[in-house]
Amino acid sequence: MTNFKAILASHANQVENALIELLNDHTLEYETTRPEKLMLAMRHSSLDGGKRLRPFLVMESARLFGIEPAQSVWAGCALELIHCYSLAHDDLPAMDDDDLRRGRPTTHIAYGEDTAILAGDALLTLAFDVLARDAVHINPAIRIELVRLYARNAGLGGMVGGQMLDLEAEKKPHINEQEILTLQAMKTGALIRCACETGAVLGGASKDQREALLHFGAAVGQAFQLADDILDETATAEAMGKQTGKDADRGKGTLVSLYGLEAAQTRANELLEEAIAALQPFGDDASVLIDAARFTVERES
Amino acid sequence: MTNFKAILASHANQVENALIELLNDHTLEYETTRPEKLMLAMRHSSLDGGKRLRPFLVMESARLFGIEPAQSVWAGCALELIHCYSLAHDDLPAMDDDDLRRGRPTTHIAYGEDTAILAGDALLTLAFDVLARDAVHINPAIRIELVRLYARNAGLGGMVGGQMLDLEAEKKPHINEQEILTLQAMKTGALIRCACETGAVLGGASKDQREALLHFGAAVGQAFQLADDILDETATAEAMGKQTGKDADRGKGTLVSLYGLEAAQTRANELLEEAIAALQPFGDDASVLIDAARFTVERES
Repeated sequence: MTNFKAILASHANQVENALIELLNDHTLEYETTRPEKLMLAMRHSSLDGGKRLRPFLVMESARLFGIEPAQSVWAGCALELIHCYSLAHDDLPAMDDDDLRRGRPTTHIAYGEDTAILAGDALLTLAFDVLARDAVHINPAIRIELVRLYARNAGLGGMVGGQMLDLEAEKKPHINEQEILTLQAMKTGALIRCACETGAVLGGASKDQREALLHFGAAVGQAFQLADDILDETATAEAMGKQTGKDADRGKGTLVSLYGLEAAQTRANELLEEAIAALQPFGDDASVLIDAARFTVERES
Repeated sequence: MTNFKAILASHANQVENALIELLNDHTLEYETTRPEKLMLAMRHSSLDGGKRLRPFLVMESARLFGIEPAQSVWAGCALELIHCYSLAHDDLPAMDDDDLRRGRPTTHIAYGEDTAILAGDALLTLAFDVLARDAVHINPAIRIELVRLYARNAGLGGMVGGQMLDLEAEKKPHINEQEILTLQAMKTGALIRCACETGAVLGGASKDQREALLHFGAAVGQAFQLADDILDETATAEAMGKQTGKDADRGKGTLVSLYGLEAAQTRANELLEEAIAALQPFGDDASVLIDAARFTVERES
C-alpha cells in the first residue's frame, strides 16, 4: 500500500484549513455582515468532520493531470460544502431525524431547526460562490463546467433526487434491486462520481480519460455505499460516531438486506476490482486512488 | 405611463414557460430519473406564481444594453428559482410557519415537510445549473460572473443571512432602524439589486452603468420592502393571497412600526425618486424600469 493514509490525512487537513478560511467572520464584497449564529451553525455542519473523501478524490484525480492539491483543494471544498449541507438537511426531524453525527450533536440539535435549514442553504450556496472564484481554475470555461457538473450531480436528478427516492422507499412495502441501485447511485454515488470527474475537468483530460475516471467513480461510489450498508449492520455506534442498525430498524431496503452480508461483501470486492481496472490507463500514477478505493471497501468506520 | 403592465405580464408569461420547460419530466444528461413527487413539489413552489418581479428587472435592465428578453429570461429564471426556493423554506413550520402563499397551500402543506425541504434544495441547485447553460450567455466568463453574483446575493451575506437576522430579530425585545435596514437589504434587497445588476453583467455595461443599476436596485428594493410592510398592515388577506398583519401580531419590528404609516409612505416615495434619478444616464430607454419602480411602491397587493 502507498502512504495512502498519510495523504488522506494531509488532504483532509488542507480541506479543513480552506473551509476555516471560507467560513471566517470577515465579510467579503457584497456582504454587510455575516450573522454570528448562522456562521456558528455553518462551521458546526462542516468543520472538524469526516474523512473528506470527496475532496480527496477531487485532489487525487486532478493530480493525475499535474494539478497541485493547493489548487484543486478549492473545487474539493466546494464539493465538500455540498456534502455537508446535505447532511445537515438529511438529519432534520422531518427527514432522517438524527441527533448524532460524527459523535457530535447534529446541527439542528445544536442550533435549532430553523438555523440548521438556513445553514444548509448557505453552505450549498457558498459551494457555488467558491466555484466562481479564480482560485479554482484560471479559465472561466472550466469553472462554469464545474458549476454545471456540481449542480447536476447535486440536484433533482442527482443527490437531492436520491434523497427523495430514499424517503419514498421507506414508505414502500418492497423495493427491488434496480430501485436500490438507482437510489444509491443518485443519493451517494453522484457526488463521488462528480469528485472523480472534477479532476478530469480541472486537468483538461481527454474524453477517454474522463470516461475512465467516471467509471472509477461510479464503481467506488457503489462499493462505498455497500460498505456503508454493511457497516450499518455490523459496526458499533461508538466506532461510527452515529446510530447504527437504523436502516434495519426502519425496515429500509438495502443491498445487504437483499443479498445477505456475505454476498454483499463479495459484490463490494467485485466493484473494487472494477474500479481498479478502470484506472489502468493511468498506470502507476493512479496508485493512491486505487488505495482509496480499497479503503472505502475495507474501512471499519 | 408606458404599457408597463402589458410588459410585466408578457415577461411573466415567458418566465412561466421557461420554468415549465426546466421542470418537465424529461431527464437530461446526468439524470437517471426525476422523482415524481419532487418534481410536483418543485412545480408547486415555482409555477403559476407571483408577478415575477425579479426576472422582469433582469430582462428590462438587460434590454438597456440591447439584450433580448428571449435570452435574458434564462438568467431571470435562475434568479426566480432562488426566490421560489427561499419562499418554500421560509414557509416551513420551523421558520415562518405559513400555510398559505399566493392563495394556495404552501409547499409543505401540499407535499409534506421533508419534500418541501428537498424541493427548495433542488430549486436552488437548479438555479446554478441554469446559469451554467449557454442559453444564458455565450461567454463563459459572463456566466461565471453571474454565478458569483447570485451566490453572494443569495447566501450567508445576502438573502439567507437576512432570513437568519430576521429570525433572530423576532426574539429580541427591540430592533433599531439600522438593524431593520441591514436585515431587509439582505433578506429582500439583495435579490432585487442582483436582478438589476444581472442586466449590467449580461449587457457588458460600463462601471458607471453598473453602479447606476445597482443604485436603482438598492432603492427599489428598499421601496419594495416598505410597500410590503405597509400592505401587511393595511391590505386584506384576500387581496394579498396570504395572511396579513402577521408582522404586527408577532411584535416584529418593521420600518412601519418604527416610523408610522404616513412617514413610511413618505419614505417610500423618496426612495422612488432616488430610484428614478439613478436611471437618468439611460434617458428614455429606462422608462419601463421607472414604471416598475413606481409600481412596487403603488401596488395594492
